[in-house]
Amino acid sequence: MKHEIYIVGMGPGREEDMTQEALTVLDSCDVIVGYTVYLNLLGERFLGKTFLSTPMRQEVERCRMCYEEAKKGKRVALICSGDAGIYGMASLMYEMSAEYPSCELTVVPGITAASSGAAVLGAPLNHDFCVISLSDLLTPWEQIKARLRAAVLGDFAIALYNPSSRKRADYLQRACDILLDAGAKGTRACGYVENIGRDGETAHTCTLQELREIQVNMFTTVFIGNSQSVIMGDKLVTKRGYQIGAGARARAKERG
Amino acid sequence: MKHEIYIVGMGPGREEDMTQEALTVLDSCDVIVGYTVYLNLLGERFLGKTFLSTPMRQEVERCRMCYEEAKKGKRVALICSGDAGIYGMASLMYEMSAEYPSCELTVVPGITAASSGAAVLGAPLNHDFCVISLSDLLTPWEQIKARLRAAVLGDFAIALYNPSSRKRADYLQRACDILLDAGAKGTRACGYVENIGRDGETAHTCTLQELREIQVNMFTTVFIGNSQSVIMGDKLVTKRGYQIGAGARARAKERG
Repeated sequence: MKHEIYIVGMGPGREEDMTQEALTVLDSCDVIVGYTVYLNLLGERFLGKTFLSTPMRQEVERCRMCYEEAKKGKRVALICSGDAGIYGMASLMYEMSAEYPSCELTVVPGITAASSGAAVLGAPLNHDFCVISLSDLLTPWEQIKARLRAAVLGDFAIALYNPSSRKRADYLQRACDILLDAGAKGTRACGYVENIGRDGETAHTCTLQELREIQVNMFTTVFIGNSQSVIMGDKLVTKRGYQIGAGARARAKERG
Repeated sequence: MKHEIYIVGMGPGREEDMTQEALTVLDSCDVIVGYTVYLNLLGERFLGKTFLSTPMRQEVERCRMCYEEAKKGKRVALICSGDAGIYGMASLMYEMSAEYPSCELTVVPGITAASSGAAVLGAPLNHDFCVISLSDLLTPWEQIKARLRAAVLGDFAIALYNPSSRKRADYLQRACDILLDAGAKGTRACGYVENIGRDGETAHTCTLQELREIQVNMFTTVFIGNSQSVIMGDKLVTKRGYQIGAGARARAKERG
């Protein structure tokens, strides 16, 4: 018999932002493993489950905990905020899977911050886009810089994850400078969303030049439009290219 | 009173892949507008709702239909497959919103094919990535080409939407050639998923050189790893950079 482990994306945090499938899977599990902050977001529905955690940065140990619990015969879910496969634990679980041939992994996707933040801000990612993390814990800064420059070169809309932390207070400013240096105009339409789907959710639009001066925190997702994006009222919109008048003109022509 | 319109991402198609919020919003609406294929995916739960549609390519008319129904006092949902704000109708609705000042838009995010397809394939987007559509209906091919080249330059993992259609049978091959020409190796780890979350869901891994020879259809999402991605069994995995041995070594050291 295979030991089943589910790697579950919980979306921004509220139960109603999870998919039905994610809820059903969590309901079916004996043990839910996750970073404490995310476990604490799970409500009454999950009373009676065994909750297991490891401190921040102990991701390898957290994954190993899942495998060890599964080997005991428990049905295990590993929860990740947002999507399990976008800066989540899915890849690390697969990397470790060779050590645990009796275990079978299933990834259950969730709403990542690019989607949930974009929904709050309007439609900033409604055309080709990049997702880039500014955290250099696991990625050399030179690689992040190369990706920011490439994003401008390809004229992608951009979602920036992990734009700041206590130790990286100026990273968003540095990222903006790289984008500007790569040719993005200071008037480029941008926005950011704090505490997506949680208490204190707020959204703001601004220009790239203004974004450079803003102090964001680790619960912020930043959106940078492509060269054609516009701010409409309090929304950031990246057009897909539909001709709004075309249909009306065609109808008028048909009518003669 | 504001007339409420919800632009709802339904995910890959099954009711269980929708978020609780999306289901609750659809439950609360009188009228559900969408492309017929997506309306047909909605089950018994929505019997009794008024379903309205326009043919393919009549997206402007479909959006206008939402506004007109809302102005009649109906509570309206516009459904999009995947996420409402990723190649969905959110941006077009905002673009038209100035004509309908009495209407208020809310975007309800859904699981986009990048997330749902990645979950089936393993963890191909577990580090910085780009999402690029190969459809040149609304985007000049030269722009698509520039984005593909930039994606290689930044060493992003890539999710390709709309990789093929009857009229664009060779577009995936052309895209692969652009990636190869931009410096991606023929051995680059890739994969593709057909009919995500629907009957006939299948996933395959292959190299970039092999991908070039594969005929995909319009219900396929293609994943191209970054230079470090690997194929593990039948899964495509893009590592995030955790040192799997590090924790074990630290523990061994603690134990002396």
